[in-house]
Order: sequence, then structure tokens, then C-alpha cells
Amino acid sequence: MMAENKLPARNEDFSEWYNQLVLRAELADYAPVRGCMVVRPYGWALWENIQAALDGRFKATGHVNAAFPLFIPMSFLEKEKDHVEGFSPELAVVTIGGGEKLEEPLVVRPTSETIIGYMYSKWIKSYRDLPVLINQWGSVVRWEMRTRLFLRTLEFYWQEGHTAHADAEEAKEEMFRILDIYYNFAVNEAAVPVFKGTKSESERFAGAQITTSIEGMMQDKKALQSATSHYFGTNFAKAFEIEFLNKDNKLQLAETTSWGLSTRMIGAIIMTHGDDQGLVLPPRLAPIQAVVVPIFKNDAEKSKVMEVADRVFKELKAAGIRIKMDDRDNVSSGFKFNDWEMRGVPVRVEIGPKDVEKNSVALARRDRPGREGKSFVQQTDLSTTVAGLLVEIQDALLKRATEFRDANIHDAKTYDELKEVVKDGWAFSYWCESRECEAKVKEDTKATTRNIPFDQPSEEGTCIVCGKPSKRKVYFAKAY
Amino acid sequence: MMAENKLPARNEDFSEWYNQLVLRAELADYAPVRGCMVVRPYGWALWENIQAALDGRFKATGHVNAAFPLFIPMSFLEKEKDHVEGFSPELAVVTIGGGEKLEEPLVVRPTSETIIGYMYSKWIKSYRDLPVLINQWGSVVRWEMRTRLFLRTLEFYWQEGHTAHADAEEAKEEMFRILDIYYNFAVNEAAVPVFKGTKSESERFAGAQITTSIEGMMQDKKALQSATSHYFGTNFAKAFEIEFLNKDNKLQLAETTSWGLSTRMIGAIIMTHGDDQGLVLPPRLAPIQAVVVPIFKNDAEKSKVMEVADRVFKELKAAGIRIKMDDRDNVSSGFKFNDWEMRGVPVRVEIGPKDVEKNSVALARRDRPGREGKSFVQQTDLSTTVAGLLVEIQDALLKRATEFRDANIHDAKTYDELKEVVKDGWAFSYWCESRECEAKVKEDTKATTRNIPFDQPSEEGTCIVCGKPSKRKVYFAKAY
Repeated sequence: MMAENKLPARNEDFSEWYNQLVLRAELADYAPVRGCMVVRPYGWALWENIQAALDGRFKATGHVNAAFPLFIPMSFLEKEKDHVEGFSPELAVVTIGGGEKLEEPLVVRPTSETIIGYMYSKWIKSYRDLPVLINQWGSVVRWEMRTRLFLRTLEFYWQEGHTAHADAEEAKEEMFRILDIYYNFAVNEAAVPVFKGTKSESERFAGAQITTSIEGMMQDKKALQSATSHYFGTNFAKAFEIEFLNKDNKLQLAETTSWGLSTRMIGAIIMTHGDDQGLVLPPRLAPIQAVVVPIFKNDAEKSKVMEVADRVFKELKAAGIRIKMDDRDNVSSGFKFNDWEMRGVPVRVEIGPKDVEKNSVALARRDRPGREGKSFVQQTDLSTTVAGLLVEIQDALLKRATEFRDANIHDAKTYDELKEVVKDGWAFSYWCESRECEAKVKEDTKATTRNIPFDQPSEEGTCIVCGKPSKRKVYFAKAY
Repeated sequence: MMAENKLPARNEDFSEWYNQLVLRAELADYAPVRGCMVVRPYGWALWENIQAALDGRFKATGHVNAAFPLFIPMSFLEKEKDHVEGFSPELAVVTIGGGEKLEEPLVVRPTSETIIGYMYSKWIKSYRDLPVLINQWGSVVRWEMRTRLFLRTLEFYWQEGHTAHADAEEAKEEMFRILDIYYNFAVNEAAVPVFKGTKSESERFAGAQITTSIEGMMQDKKALQSATSHYFGTNFAKAFEIEFLNKDNKLQLAETTSWGLSTRMIGAIIMTHGDDQGLVLPPRLAPIQAVVVPIFKNDAEKSKVMEVADRVFKELKAAGIRIKMDDRDNVSSGFKFNDWEMRGVPVRVEIGPKDVEKNSVALARRDRPGREGKSFVQQTDLSTTVAGLLVEIQDALLKRATEFRDANIHDAKTYDELKEVVKDGWAFSYWCESRECEAKVKEDTKATTRNIPFDQPSEEGTCIVCGKPSKRKVYFAKAY
């Protein structure tokens, strides 16, 4: 790659590295409307793989998909006090339809609790109608002022699940079940290690009684909230009259949950695995898992090499590997190598005239650039070799990211130590769970509480800020 | 089913039959915003099957998916004269964002030619970048005044493909290739017989040079335009400066196409196959292809019957049949039969105590209600029997719909005959292709030209309205 085409180094300008990588790997582009993005085919193919992995998990646990409207009457948002407070500063409002001023302005959905609550109150009459377990894939709009591709855009793509249950226990189980799905997806598909836990009161979703999240550490050591799962109690059921006749034939309010994972997850993947050459994709989600690059200098070489390359391509494809042939004749092999490295393709299969003679190919793994990641293997049983290598890469990415994360979490014991630690890492410390102590940390360090992980030490401690007794530790970190 | 639960008969009130069927089969519901719909899980599962069938065909022909923003600057629509004329009366306009009045109002996309054209002008630089073959799944908004669930709603779900090519011939080939995909999908998946053809000048998409469509006949003999594929020439390329360096290193305008199929197709399926008992779904798209209904009067019978029912369920599921077990104990078998008939499930597998003894089951086909569609078969090899029956039903639905359609198309030879025919059928007649003659037919009969089919008789004729020479016949019909 020519010098002017190099990405900024991560350790010099992480933010600019990220922005350029997104554009250069052709994952997304800026739309003409401020803060909006275009997800390009390569980025969307990644999102489709994320969707498939999650959708299968949702369906396996009894969820079904549906579609609710984009437009919500403004009055709906006002029915739940916390909800309207949380979202009203961020709304896009339609005031004109078909050339006429509308009597009631319509909000472009920032999230769909209200409109789905309204429909649930029509559909749910008896305990026999419960639980209702609906998910929706789509986009929502929040008028954000500072935007970044995938991380925070005016319109973003996500899934939002909305469920209604006969009792609180079942609703909470649902919230945790979904959080487990997100965790399992992040770790096993995206190779992004995350912590499951509860958000603090001040970081809760607008209208929720409990918000849980998964939180990952990016390579700049900032935290990224990667998905959330909420328990609403009867807040939305009260606001929208979601009532049912229970087994004793008495009217009862439903208990509801909602949960979402967005295209932000693509940002998490980029910032967890990417390197100075570009994107590094986990094989299980990569739109292209392996690329075949035939190498030749003249027509005689070409015909020999292409014969093997075509055969290898077919064999890998037949084995279910998502494979691409790069037989472009207007760019050099070096250009191709850089190109596919920028796009994060996990394995490159190089085939040159020497390989034809030796019945071999060169395999280059994306997660270990240069000589270290290169191996020369027999063509025989190549699909088994490549499939095995893909598993190895998937595991190696998770291992590397987990080690990096764990090495950058510090068990801060004093407030001074905490202040030092969160400059370039996370602190894992006892906290009294008061808003005051949380606000002080934020004020002093810009670090916020990420979540109170379910996984806690057995002993109790004292709040790192005020010294009062504390039952649980929390992660403090600067966050996206 | 109780009398008050019966649908209106199709031949008494087709329109009310349709509306009630959509609600009662739980395909969709009315949203709180006028003209918007909620697609319920059963309807969305049908749409997901439609999506999968189409998406596979698009990808097999080299198309990729992407996502473009919901919001389009108002000024973009004004760049193509016909396009803005066509769409400006139907726009939903965002004038407020984040609590502030916007400097430039944003249109909620009614279709995405303009914003995609803008992005293509950024991405396409050289003939090597062409063709660009992008599709998008999503929703669009058109401020319609008279709405019907699935047929015409303010917001509707669809796919919209947008392609750019180096020359006109290739672009036209693309338009036809996609129309073939739509045709193939409608006939082979939805069992909806349709005609492929060219729309008249007055029925063209706003901004198109050629619009092609597939048109089907509903059971009320009205036509439903079920999908369209457009060739724009360089209209949008000019408006958005989509230019590339050709092989001679000269700047040249790209040729573009667009094409779409929407949730309207669900309306086509309902109105082509439904009967007075409810929905009738083509097996290839049905979310549930077969339902097992165990029948018993007491616990002793129940345990015997459920053993067989569970085994049958597992066997059919393992064979890849989309199967549902209806073991509800709070409703009668008769209620269940009606329930699944309303939902259009192609095959019902009934298992009672007698069947357990005889190693048999009763199969009821949805396309032939009552005794005629019932057969008693051995449990042995049941999955093969059911799979075969599903194929038979699929074929029978297409055959019946095709015969119905063909019996209701008349080769009107005089204008008086045409006027009579289009009261309750379609006319297939020569037409001079003038706007005047087309407008006269519409004025006199409310019938419009549907399309000029590619399949034409070899001889020429004279226009049914003005008597001038005519090269091609056209379908005239009242339409949705």
C-alpha cells in the first residue's frame, strides 16, 4: 500500500483511525443529511450476519418478528413521564403530510415502547394471551448532536424486542434471558468479550425499573455499551392500559420488558479487533471468510494458476466457506493483499506457479499480519485446513481481546488510584450506589459507571468515593 | 365457527371480506396513525418468507443489499422534474429536529432514487466501478388519502433495487431480468399468475423512460399491479451527476434502473387464493405448512392420541415441513379447524383414537374445504405423503387461479363490447397507444390500461377506441 493510503496508527489517533477505516473498508459512508449514514453493501452484509445469528437465537427462545409503524402520535410519548423526559430533546417531528399541516404532529420513532404498548392493550385480554414475545428489525431516529458512523447516528438500525408477561418474575427472567443471548452472541459470534450487569439508576433507560447491559472494552480502553435489556415493571402497562383477566378472572396490569442491539455492534467489532492495516473480522460474522488470490506474471503462468485457483475456490465454496475469488487483472497482488486486509477478511489463500508445482498454497491469517501469520499447506483437504484455521482465528481473537481487556482493568482501592486508572483503563471498585458519588467521579474524571456486573466477589467493601459500606463493585470507565 | 364469526361472503362484499380476513387471520392491524398498519407476527412471517425467496434470487444474480437513510433533503426531490411532480403531493415532511426548526425540511423517503443517485455520484468514478447492483429492504412513506391494509398504506414495506450501468442495453437487460425474477417469484412461490408487460406512458413511474410491471387478477376481477421494474435512461444520472470515465477515458453518464415489490404482494395472495372460510396460503410461502390437531374426549384417549401426535409432529418437522402442534385444551376441535382455516394453513393433520388403532391419520387440504379435500392415509411414511400433498396444493392453487383469470379475460373487438367486459373482467384489445384513447376508456368505464404484455399475437389490429392501426394489444381493467 502506498504511504498516503495508510490509516493513521491507532496509538496516534484512534478516533481518526476509526473514521478512516469505516470509509476505506467501505462499511459505511456519510449521508447528505447531517448525522445520518449510508451502510454500504459490505457493512450491510456484516449486519445481515449479525441479524441472522441473533434472529435464530430469538426464534429458538419463542420470539416472533413483527413490524410497527415509523410514526407515533406526539401525545403517546407524553403518557410515560420518564420516557418523554428522556426522549423529547431528541425527536424528529413530522408536521406536514400530503401538503397539509397535521393536527397532531407525528414523531419519527426514537424507540417503540409507546406504540407497541398501545397495540398490546388492544391485543392482550386474558392470561391465555400471555406472554407476548415480539421483536422488530428496523431503524429509529434520535436527534443526536455529536455523531460517529455506527456509534451514534441520527438514524440507526437495530432490533427492539418488546414483551408482556403475567407477572414480574417472568418478565425479569425474560430480561435476563435476552441479556444472556446478547452476551452469548457478543462472545461467541463477534469475539467481543463483554460484562453482563445492571446499570446504575442514572444510567437507566427512560421509563425502566431495571436496565441491564453488556459492556465491552475498546482498544483505546473506552467502554462501549453494546446492548441493553430493560424491565419496566408495570410502568408502560399503566400508561397504555395493558390489562388482562388473570386466572382468578380479575383485571391485572401486565409486566413488560424491552431490549435492543444496534449497528453500534459493528463499531464494537471494529474497535475490538481492528489493527493499523484495517478491519479484522471474526470469521463467524465475516461476509467473506477467505479470499483466493491467484498470482502470476504471464499468460502461461495464469492458465496454470487459475486452474488450481478455480478448483480451490469451488472446493471451499462447496464446504460452506464464504469465499471470494480476486482475479482482477488491473491491480497488483500487493494491492489486493492490502485491499483484503483493509476489509478484514480472516484468511487469504495465495496461489502462485510454485504452489501449482508443489501442490501447495500459502495461507495468510488476518489476525497475525506478516510472516508470523503465514503458513504453506498442501492443497489436499484444503477445505478442512481452512475451516480449522477459521475456528482457530475466531478463538484467537476472543483470547487476545479478553487478555487486553483484563490487563486494563484495575482494582482501584483509593479514590486517587481510581482517578489515575480511568485515564487509561477501567476501574473495578466498590461503590455505595448513590447518585452523588457517581456524579463526583464523572465530574472529576469523565468516567461513568458502566455496569454493576452480576459476577461479584463474595466479600463486601467500602465505597471508593465516600467510604460508606458497599455491597457491590462497579466498573468505572470513560465511554462512547 | 359461530355464525357471528363468519366472514362476509366474497360474492356479497369482497371489500369487507378482505378487510375482515386481514384482521381475523391476524395478518395486520390498524395503527393509531391514520393509514398506517401494524404487520402482526403471522403476517410478518409470511413477508419474511417472501423476502427470503426474493433475496435469494437477487443475490444469485449478483445483487447486494445496503441501507440508505430515511431522510432526504427536500431539494433532492426537486432535481428531477417528473419525479418531484409525481411525489410532492404525497410527502411527509420533518420540519423539527431536536427541538429546533430545521433550515431545510427533510422528506421521509417516498422512494430512494434521489438519495441513492447522490451516493452513486460519489462512488462511481470509472467503468470498472460498474455495474452497481444494490437492493434495500425497508419501508417508505407516501401520504395516501384512501388506504387499505397491505394494498395502500401511508407507510409500507418493500424492497427497492437501484442499479447503475455503463450503457443503455445493459440497463434495459437488468430491468427485464428483475421483471423475470418477479414473474418467477409470483408464479412459482405465490402461485399468483401474472402478466409481464410495459406500462403506458401515463402509468409510468415518475421519472422513468420505461416502466414494466407484473399484473394479476384478483377474485373480484380487479387487477393488482404486483411489482414494477423501471428504466430511467440517464434522467437520474443527469440530475445527480452520476458520471464515469469510460474505456476511452471520457466522462459518460450512467444508465440507471429501479425496481420494487412490496407488502402489496400479501394483498395479492389473499385476493387470489382466499375463500369464504378465510386465507388460503400457497405452501411454499406459508409460515405454517401443516398443523397437527389431536382429537380426544378423555384422558385415556388423550395419552394414546398425543403419543402418535407427538411422533407425527417430530417426523414432519425433521422432514423440513413447517409444522405446528395445536394441543390447546381450552377450545374444541371444531374451533381449531376453523381457526387454522382462517389462517390459511395448507394441510391439517387430524389424529383421533380411531386413527391410533388403524395406524392412520386424516389429512384435510385447505384449498378444498369439506369432505372433498379430506383423505385418510397411513402413518407410515407420512412426511413423504404430506410433502407430496403440499406440492399438489401449490400446483392446484396456481392452476385454479390461472383458469379463473383466463376465463375472465375477453378479447373485446368493439368499444361497446369493451365497456361491457370491463364491468366484470378484463379486456385484451388493440390500442393505438395514444393518451387520448386511454383517457376516454378510463372516463367511460373506470378501467385503465394495465400493461402491454410482451406476449403478443403476430398480427396487428386497429385501436378499440379510435380505429387507427395498432401494433400491440393491452389489458384494460379496473385496478387497485
